[in-house]
Amino acid sequence: MPQTDASLFDAATAVTRTEGGGLVADLDPGWDVGPGVLNGGYLLAVVARAALAESRHPHPVALSASFLRATGPGPVTLAVTPGPAGRTLAHSSVVLTGAGGPSLAVQVTTATLTDEPPAYSAAPPPEVTPVERCLPAVDDGTLPHPLPEVGLRTRVHTRLDPATAGWALGRPGEEPVVRGWVRLADGREPDPLALLLFADVLPPTSWAIGRFGWAPTVQLQVLVRALPAPGWCLVEARANELAGGWLDEDYRIWDATGRLVAQSRQLARLPR
Amino acid sequence: MPQTDASLFDAATAVTRTEGGGLVADLDPGWDVGPGVLNGGYLLAVVARAALAESRHPHPVALSASFLRATGPGPVTLAVTPGPAGRTLAHSSVVLTGAGGPSLAVQVTTATLTDEPPAYSAAPPPEVTPVERCLPAVDDGTLPHPLPEVGLRTRVHTRLDPATAGWALGRPGEEPVVRGWVRLADGREPDPLALLLFADVLPPTSWAIGRFGWAPTVQLQVLVRALPAPGWCLVEARANELAGGWLDEDYRIWDATGRLVAQSRQLARLPR
Repeated sequence: MPQTDASLFDAATAVTRTEGGGLVADLDPGWDVGPGVLNGGYLLAVVARAALAESRHPHPVALSASFLRATGPGPVTLAVTPGPAGRTLAHSSVVLTGAGGPSLAVQVTTATLTDEPPAYSAAPPPEVTPVERCLPAVDDGTLPHPLPEVGLRTRVHTRLDPATAGWALGRPGEEPVVRGWVRLADGREPDPLALLLFADVLPPTSWAIGRFGWAPTVQLQVLVRALPAPGWCLVEARANELAGGWLDEDYRIWDATGRLVAQSRQLARLPR
Repeated sequence: MPQTDASLFDAATAVTRTEGGGLVADLDPGWDVGPGVLNGGYLLAVVARAALAESRHPHPVALSASFLRATGPGPVTLAVTPGPAGRTLAHSSVVLTGAGGPSLAVQVTTATLTDEPPAYSAAPPPEVTPVERCLPAVDDGTLPHPLPEVGLRTRVHTRLDPATAGWALGRPGEEPVVRGWVRLADGREPDPLALLLFADVLPPTSWAIGRFGWAPTVQLQVLVRALPAPGWCLVEARANELAGGWLDEDYRIWDATGRLVAQSRQLARLPR
């Protein structure tokens, strides 16, 4: 699928420089995960665009974000504080502020990624059901627990591996693991910005064990490891430990060639 | 071992409030990992103390840091920008600035940790050699590649699992994994601040495959999951992918009871 000129994702993550020199964006209500709450990965892509606007490097390689409060659609400012910058990488801090105050504070590192093969890899893609035999993550009336009808699912085609989608069929499992294939619905091919979106794109892993409910992200770190090939990306989210009201979620993302292209880890609050 | 009144770790991480209300620290040269370069975990413990000084919550639960430049010993300021704070958790941003300028920018989340058992855990401790049969990580004249004689090793007792210490015996392995037991040399028992130190305490995992050299941390996220029991902590560091001049390092830390108490992930530059 060729990259379209009019990508919804590119338009929704666009960052504009004001006459005063500041950076602003108009967050698109279409990327929500609940009433008035936008997806964290979508917000990271906007933040990364702001950091890139102030960097000589073309790609985000590491973002570490504190989610200060939920972020809704509408106008926001993006305050970028540049840090040291060199030939290899550049640092900056970005604060996203909307009507409700600062909602995202992010450490960003930019650099130049390649698609050269890894010198070492211990993260091959897992066994997974081919995309054409996976479950659509939208409500077609057949699933007891389909994903809620939120904007994110219309923007990102999501195909759930039946092996980790028992919860959607009324049979939650023992492991907080969710796996699926994703790609942008607008036909735009994946790039490092899209990988930031994909690093928080699946439903909470706690749903896989029948703990439905909102699992708000507290902190999220995303590492982008390589330029992804065109096509579907495979995303696996896994919680290692649920304790004291908290859970971690590790994401690993492979491109269509099976290459590990991103990793993320978040700390979230556990649904009751 | 009882917690001593005069813990070197507590003294070296102390943060003081100035008459003007700001926070300062005097970084101790004894926690170095190379000439004039202090250990990243040590620095995170200092940063966490600054965040705690401005929080109603007693424990660091998540720190995400950008390492802007190497940090040496001597006086530093710690600028804390408080974020939203509630009954469950509080956010802040901390910038550590020394003679060379800002060197660490950190997102911090504080909360109240417990030692209540996990509701789910998929991270049991790995098979490991008992501490009394592990290798000391200091130069006793018997190891071809002992750890460099740096301050950190005199401050943290480190016992390397021979199963992942082939590199120290002149036989680097195939896997970038290093495992060892650690505890503070001053006899102080572990707590969440010590876990921050332990989250960057082992030599680079790239040494395990014979790529010796400095692997500077670019970004590091640490999650503290529970209050650790007294005694040795088991630390395992593992790189998943080495590519394009970068490596990731995942740390998992278990306390003396085998409980997972902390996780970290860093992106670092790969030694040549």
